[in-house]
Amino acid sequence: MNVVLLDPSEVRADGGASLDGRRAEHVAKVLGKAPGDALAVGVRGGKLGSAQVVSSTKQALELEACVFEREPAPKRPITLVLALPRPPVFRRLLQHVTALGIERIVLLHTRRVEKSYWMSPSLEPAAIDTQLQLGLEQAVDTVAPDIERARGFKAFAEDRLPELAAGARVLVAHPGPFGPCPVDVPGPVVLLVGPEGGFIPYEIERLTEAGAQGVSLGPRILRVETATLALLGRLGG
Amino acid sequence: MNVVLLDPSEVRADGGASLDGRRAEHVAKVLGKAPGDALAVGVRGGKLGSAQVVSSTKQALELEACVFEREPAPKRPITLVLALPRPPVFRRLLQHVTALGIERIVLLHTRRVEKSYWMSPSLEPAAIDTQLQLGLEQAVDTVAPDIERARGFKAFAEDRLPELAAGARVLVAHPGPFGPCPVDVPGPVVLLVGPEGGFIPYEIERLTEAGAQGVSLGPRILRVETATLALLGRLGG
Repeated sequence: MNVVLLDPSEVRADGGASLDGRRAEHVAKVLGKAPGDALAVGVRGGKLGSAQVVSSTKQALELEACVFEREPAPKRPITLVLALPRPPVFRRLLQHVTALGIERIVLLHTRRVEKSYWMSPSLEPAAIDTQLQLGLEQAVDTVAPDIERARGFKAFAEDRLPELAAGARVLVAHPGPFGPCPVDVPGPVVLLVGPEGGFIPYEIERLTEAGAQGVSLGPRILRVETATLALLGRLGG
Repeated sequence: MNVVLLDPSEVRADGGASLDGRRAEHVAKVLGKAPGDALAVGVRGGKLGSAQVVSSTKQALELEACVFEREPAPKRPITLVLALPRPPVFRRLLQHVTALGIERIVLLHTRRVEKSYWMSPSLEPAAIDTQLQLGLEQAVDTVAPDIERARGFKAFAEDRLPELAAGARVLVAHPGPFGPCPVDVPGPVVLLVGPEGGFIPYEIERLTEAGAQGVSLGPRILRVETATLALLGRLGG
């Protein structure tokens, strides 16, 4: 936790704030803050800044003099369209890509996504928000990526993808005779990553018709988590 | 498991092989192979090829006509020097970087590595080999990265790093006023990644003296796993 994030409603008019739970415990146990110490804070969705510790125990953290004066790093104009992975990979990837500053994540159903994944408690809004918060706290950011769900592949390819693609470079990661993923792409990018086992040929055809360019990471078959992070590293930003 | 890897000792002179345990179970349960089916196989440390299934149950897999005729994709001439992470991250990273085809991994002790990590059962040779095998099976490769341990930072920086650095580009990932990590570097690379919390200034000085160039992934503070995979994606290969 490299920044303690507060909800706007938690900051009082006098610049004080009272926290409990995970954040209080972390500040007391891991950061070992004492009264008078400065603490890096941020307002979820807003600015970064600092606060002063009034008191800190594992149960309760009292802050005063909360000042929020600088914007977080801008989001990278990247939309990651991710075939919904199995829940533990999904949870980790949410943290990874939030920390990397991606603007938007679209969770996509494809033929090889197991339908049961959509029933996972990890997809409940509060569970998703926990992972986003952890990614933001790691990266010292306040603005989470937007999360969309696209449970119909055809509707996504025909309706939503063209909207996302307007003005953007659209890349689909797929093993095959494709060139390497481009590097340090300056403008908006839509990156599509299939499920373990890949997109089926029909899906690749529909995505290609919608303007997606196939990119490869070489001859090795990679897991979704490995491939996604290596690709996002290449895109830069 | 995109290839079933055999130990050289498991392949009989008549081209047959008898497997049990995890591999037999996977072929029967996940791949659902029946007698007569072809199976992608490889010899650990050797070539890739194919075999024919004689019989397949969850307990025992009988193969015949094992033929090994093609080399796996060449290793990427990258040495990853990794401050030893906590065990679950270590296990996942071993799989990730093996799948990515890295040539060598040096596990390094630094000031901010918890000494208890070196006592983890995950560092026992058999435990490491399990992760390497999973990475190779995923990537359809047969040759695991070499694993070295460097438990003395000073000796590593003064003796081993200069050997590794001969003819190679040496990069150290560190937050700060550094340029971005270069992309698609053609020749050998030594990439150093610090622990959660980073290298301490003394360590950065020693590494820089040994010729390492600082590289940054931008203003966000990333976890070791996120940063390592994004950096390896950039290096290409």
